[in-house]
Amino acid sequence: MEAFDQYIEKHRKSYLEELRRFCRQPSISNTGKGMQAMAEMVAERLSGLGAEPRLITVGDSYPYVYAEIGEGRRTLLIYNHYDVQPAHREDGWAHDPFDPVIQNGRLYARGVADNKANLLFRIQSVEAYLAVYGRLPLRVRFLIEGEEEIGSPHLPRFVESYADLIQADGCIWESGRTGHNGNPVLHLGLRGILYVELSIQADQRGMHSSWANIVENPALPLEERLRQALQTLMDEEGRPALNGLETPPLSQEDLALLETIPFDPATVQVEHGVTLRPGLSGVEALRRVLFEPSCNICGLGAGYTGPGIKTVIPNRAVAKVDFRLPFGLTPDEVEIHLRRHLQAHGFEEIQIRRLAALHPARFSPNAAIVRAVREAVRTVYGVEPTIYPLMPASGPMYTLCQVQDIPAVTFGTGYPGDNTHAANENIRLKDYFRALRCFGRILDRFASLED
Amino acid sequence: MEAFDQYIEKHRKSYLEELRRFCRQPSISNTGKGMQAMAEMVAERLSGLGAEPRLITVGDSYPYVYAEIGEGRRTLLIYNHYDVQPAHREDGWAHDPFDPVIQNGRLYARGVADNKANLLFRIQSVEAYLAVYGRLPLRVRFLIEGEEEIGSPHLPRFVESYADLIQADGCIWESGRTGHNGNPVLHLGLRGILYVELSIQADQRGMHSSWANIVENPALPLEERLRQALQTLMDEEGRPALNGLETPPLSQEDLALLETIPFDPATVQVEHGVTLRPGLSGVEALRRVLFEPSCNICGLGAGYTGPGIKTVIPNRAVAKVDFRLPFGLTPDEVEIHLRRHLQAHGFEEIQIRRLAALHPARFSPNAAIVRAVREAVRTVYGVEPTIYPLMPASGPMYTLCQVQDIPAVTFGTGYPGDNTHAANENIRLKDYFRALRCFGRILDRFASLED
Repeated sequence: MEAFDQYIEKHRKSYLEELRRFCRQPSISNTGKGMQAMAEMVAERLSGLGAEPRLITVGDSYPYVYAEIGEGRRTLLIYNHYDVQPAHREDGWAHDPFDPVIQNGRLYARGVADNKANLLFRIQSVEAYLAVYGRLPLRVRFLIEGEEEIGSPHLPRFVESYADLIQADGCIWESGRTGHNGNPVLHLGLRGILYVELSIQADQRGMHSSWANIVENPALPLEERLRQALQTLMDEEGRPALNGLETPPLSQEDLALLETIPFDPATVQVEHGVTLRPGLSGVEALRRVLFEPSCNICGLGAGYTGPGIKTVIPNRAVAKVDFRLPFGLTPDEVEIHLRRHLQAHGFEEIQIRRLAALHPARFSPNAAIVRAVREAVRTVYGVEPTIYPLMPASGPMYTLCQVQDIPAVTFGTGYPGDNTHAANENIRLKDYFRALRCFGRILDRFASLED
Repeated sequence: MEAFDQYIEKHRKSYLEELRRFCRQPSISNTGKGMQAMAEMVAERLSGLGAEPRLITVGDSYPYVYAEIGEGRRTLLIYNHYDVQPAHREDGWAHDPFDPVIQNGRLYARGVADNKANLLFRIQSVEAYLAVYGRLPLRVRFLIEGEEEIGSPHLPRFVESYADLIQADGCIWESGRTGHNGNPVLHLGLRGILYVELSIQADQRGMHSSWANIVENPALPLEERLRQALQTLMDEEGRPALNGLETPPLSQEDLALLETIPFDPATVQVEHGVTLRPGLSGVEALRRVLFEPSCNICGLGAGYTGPGIKTVIPNRAVAKVDFRLPFGLTPDEVEIHLRRHLQAHGFEEIQIRRLAALHPARFSPNAAIVRAVREAVRTVYGVEPTIYPLMPASGPMYTLCQVQDIPAVTFGTGYPGDNTHAANENIRLKDYFRALRCFGRILDRFASLED
């Protein structure tokens, strides 16, 4: 596929410029900022392939962008999302998160790693394939949603209403990255998630802060109460302390699989700039991340802590907590266990509100789409990819793929220092163009592989 | 002024509809939402008077809306703001804060009490005066800014650049309300404010929450540390515990003034639905609110606590704190005392960021504009207004009026249950139309009163 690689090399500059343009457009599903504009930008890009993209809304969803192109024995579903996490410069960004900056071979911008680079290189790859070879050897279906970062709330209804649009023999999932050793990592599934808001209300109204001299301020006691509840949710090692969330024993097969994955806690610690819980071996750390549920405090506080000023005596404290769920545990189960736990610990006054819920998903390494990606990776990267049974993060893979029995695998431009969901999110440009070249091979291999 | 009152009665429905329209337009200076549209809506309304409004920006300010109309011996400056505080339904609103609802003779909407009703009835009053009497007996200057709720950061530069536009013999200030006994309250000044953000950073990066099984989550310790610092800022009675913020002794005149103000803590407690610090007499409570500095926690928290979901292991805790300053204390002084205090208590790692600062202001009760308002109130309300030396809240009165020696006084539609800055903000419609009628008399009296 030399001609394909040459074509990409020739379009390097314009492809990169396009990526910057995508990153410049805010698309924050949490607040709605820029969502419609982003959906239209994606659809326009797909038109450029000669496809006839559709913007489909389900109820009051943000638009799903759908397009289909090519013909052949096999059909590939490409799932991405055009929405990104919120970002404020004061979160620690070195620059405006929506003003992409290239530095040291990296492109920094909110959403570039999750998921605009992956979204775009796949489109560019199809374009390059068409330009060089005149036709695709298979049918490609793009499904690009705008609600992944808020838990894909409308996807079940979308799948129900448009089941015929997504039928496929395999799916390339939105994310994907290389590991610490530089080898591509393929995930064959992902963890589920239950994201809840816990809140506690004072028995007084919120009030203008000019009364502070004589009105009791409940911020500290409210927040203290919430903290006490949060502390009961985890044991000393940070594991969920809820009854019912104990980890089932691992199969011999999964234990063996764990041993094949290179994972060095010290490297994670340095590359991510975080502190790991002490005394974890690589295998044990990995076992926890892939096969244990987690409980994480995404935030807790009382009153106003957003940007700028609000002058009020607060009357409410809130915590945002997410539970990641290994294969076999459902969000409904966890919510029931959480309610029972708070009751049992005397926190009856704490309200639980479910903000997102996704099932875990997992597929076999023997599916044709997985084999196609492995072969393509060997060709371009010259190494064997690392196979993760599932990825520590979450997504609607169960709804979109597991229910329809469409094997899914990740392949993309992320790397361990990409700061996904955090400040200074970035990708390495070399990863971008290597993934772009590899994707042409994936199309090729998947079209021709035996079952 | 019977014809004037009849004119208002005849236009009651359209005036009210106009108020709803103003409230329907979000205008949140904190986020920028709807600001330009709101400025244009205000300017268009002023055009309706036959004035030629200007939208003036200073640096990257939101537009100041300025208009001048009428001629006469005296000039009246009318200062208002078209921006409002942030509002989310989940803060406790019974409905969308930007979908005004009329219930039990009240209009509920974010910003109606602070400050859209006051903004609009003054314009409508001038309109009615012109319609009934053909001309105004004085020159009226409207200055309506869009940054009051974020501390009027550009007003000093505006005043410097456009000093000629604001020269006047008296000023009607943006706010104003009735007291618990139903009598209008006139404020002759207001407290200053220093609003700071205190923050503390973990020595790890923020990170995607899918790593929670093996990464330490610093949310609780960070927030605990911030809580410890906040606890040192106040004594057991909630008074600022900083050196240098002791209250200076009150003059005999001010003590006597305090005795003239009807103020019942029990009523405040019930009407506002809050808990007062125990054991405060009316005079003592009032003394604290008007003549003591305050320290209030507007919010504290770690990580993400905003609407919707964000899945991250936090690395920063933040507190928003405001100090209200009695006449004689400046924001600069308080910030110095705060820095020294945190140093002295071992909280060197806590960052202080100033988000807003306003000087206190205070004027004489003998100014012509004050006498004009008192006389007008007597005529329309049939009672003597209560004179507050200053109001517990803050605003840029020092910058706009004190520096230029333009006596200012409040007169408006607020009342003790209006929930300013909180959920379910509202005004009573009877207050609105009574204020509208009264304002015609204010114009009249101010034009003709002796010095």
